[in-house]
Amino acid sequence: MGELINGRELADKMQAQIKEEVQDLEKKGIHPGLVVLLVGENQASQTYVKNKDLAAAKIGIRSKIERLPETISEVELLSVIEQYNQDSNYHGILVQLPLPKHIDEEKVLLAVDPNKDVDGFHPMNMGHLFIGEPTMIPCTPYGIMKMFEAYNIDLEGKRAVVIGRSNIVGKPMAQLMMMKNATVTIAHSRTVDLPAVAKEADILVVAIGRGHFVTKEFVKPGAVVIDVGMNRDENGKLIGDVKFDEVSEVASFITPVPKGVGPMTITMLMYQTVEAAKKQK
Amino acid sequence: MGELINGRELADKMQAQIKEEVQDLEKKGIHPGLVVLLVGENQASQTYVKNKDLAAAKIGIRSKIERLPETISEVELLSVIEQYNQDSNYHGILVQLPLPKHIDEEKVLLAVDPNKDVDGFHPMNMGHLFIGEPTMIPCTPYGIMKMFEAYNIDLEGKRAVVIGRSNIVGKPMAQLMMMKNATVTIAHSRTVDLPAVAKEADILVVAIGRGHFVTKEFVKPGAVVIDVGMNRDENGKLIGDVKFDEVSEVASFITPVPKGVGPMTITMLMYQTVEAAKKQK
Repeated sequence: MGELINGRELADKMQAQIKEEVQDLEKKGIHPGLVVLLVGENQASQTYVKNKDLAAAKIGIRSKIERLPETISEVELLSVIEQYNQDSNYHGILVQLPLPKHIDEEKVLLAVDPNKDVDGFHPMNMGHLFIGEPTMIPCTPYGIMKMFEAYNIDLEGKRAVVIGRSNIVGKPMAQLMMMKNATVTIAHSRTVDLPAVAKEADILVVAIGRGHFVTKEFVKPGAVVIDVGMNRDENGKLIGDVKFDEVSEVASFITPVPKGVGPMTITMLMYQTVEAAKKQK
Repeated sequence: MGELINGRELADKMQAQIKEEVQDLEKKGIHPGLVVLLVGENQASQTYVKNKDLAAAKIGIRSKIERLPETISEVELLSVIEQYNQDSNYHGILVQLPLPKHIDEEKVLLAVDPNKDVDGFHPMNMGHLFIGEPTMIPCTPYGIMKMFEAYNIDLEGKRAVVIGRSNIVGKPMAQLMMMKNATVTIAHSRTVDLPAVAKEADILVVAIGRGHFVTKEFVKPGAVVIDVGMNRDENGKLIGDVKFDEVSEVASFITPVPKGVGPMTITMLMYQTVEAAKKQK
């Protein structure tokens, strides 16, 4: 039976540390601020944004949710972003995705000042990460790296496999593990014999977005398994991409869903907001 | 015995096509121009720059080598770059690397207008490539993709292994092959049991910078082998990273050194200069 990587516990511990740092910064007159732009009424987005807002409040980060109508034009949205680029009260700007179809997502991400892009999605920040000089890092893979650190999981010389090649998880995850000298393979929906490829992994990160997709046939005995999935089963219950019950029997370490990767993502968002505030001072 | 991928022949063919396009553009009043900034007297750099200049002349691209003293300050170099950023006669700016040690290479690459960065090294262009929306692409991996195309080598669903994780070859190569739905592994100097990892490859790209490092023990029978190496042996002869004589016995396709990848790199530089000229008009 694999050891549980307790994301909730680690996140609480890190958030307490960040809170202390914010208190120190306050004394120096630095008040970290985060604005979240929420366009429209997407239900999942509402929940995510609320959770970010609660975490910020708990830590003492000034947080604001700017709600914008579904019908906002691209030009108007860009001008709202520009206003926050100029506003020195906000060190982090987060545009909650997805955006309505009439708005060009790439154009919007490009409009955010890279120094305030606490999500790490701006092409300039992606480029810096890609060349091994990271500035802002996408929060989910960054949080997973913190988990490896906290649980003394060494990546040096290990075979790592990432399932899923998204810009916000798969690709930055691969780059971060490679920076720690892992030999990394990115597998995806077009990979032939995915279970066999996954089974090469000492470290398996699953971000494919299909509930309980990864069974024990995908996992080498003793592998570390990280589950980024957030899916709903037929009863509306939150489940991961990994069939936890059977995979936990063969893994050496495994993250649960919920209380695994999710809390760490929000924590790294807070962490990067505070870092941004320090740099912008 | 594997089929030879004749980089010289393919480069000549592509350069003839680019030359025709340049002639058409001239009629429309567009005169593609490339400036190469060469700092100091590095011998290898002198040769590379001369070869680029000759290729440009042959194709009909206006080309200029701006020779700058080894002692130039960073500030002066940045101001030269800014001058060419503003100069509409030059659509491509190439800063020949390496730079003298007193100059911050990253700062210099950042100073080049991304629209004129025909080498594809600017973090913004790297970022666009990383997120799958390439604008400018590093020329060596781009040239290799053109080879796959010309020789009908399909990447879909194949296992690809890149040996070497440099910013200018290994990492962009991995991303480009992944965009064609290959399952890509990046191996490197810290990979454990490199021959076994390499042997998983249907497509093996070697860019490790060690003469004759890859022997037939690294190669699955029938694999496609691309050799990016440019090394000198004890007699000063140009050799690749791959032991051609024995690997060509097991590979299905293989590039030679010289006359393999090298000519394609220069060709893609010319190609991107012409593309840049079209976009900037």
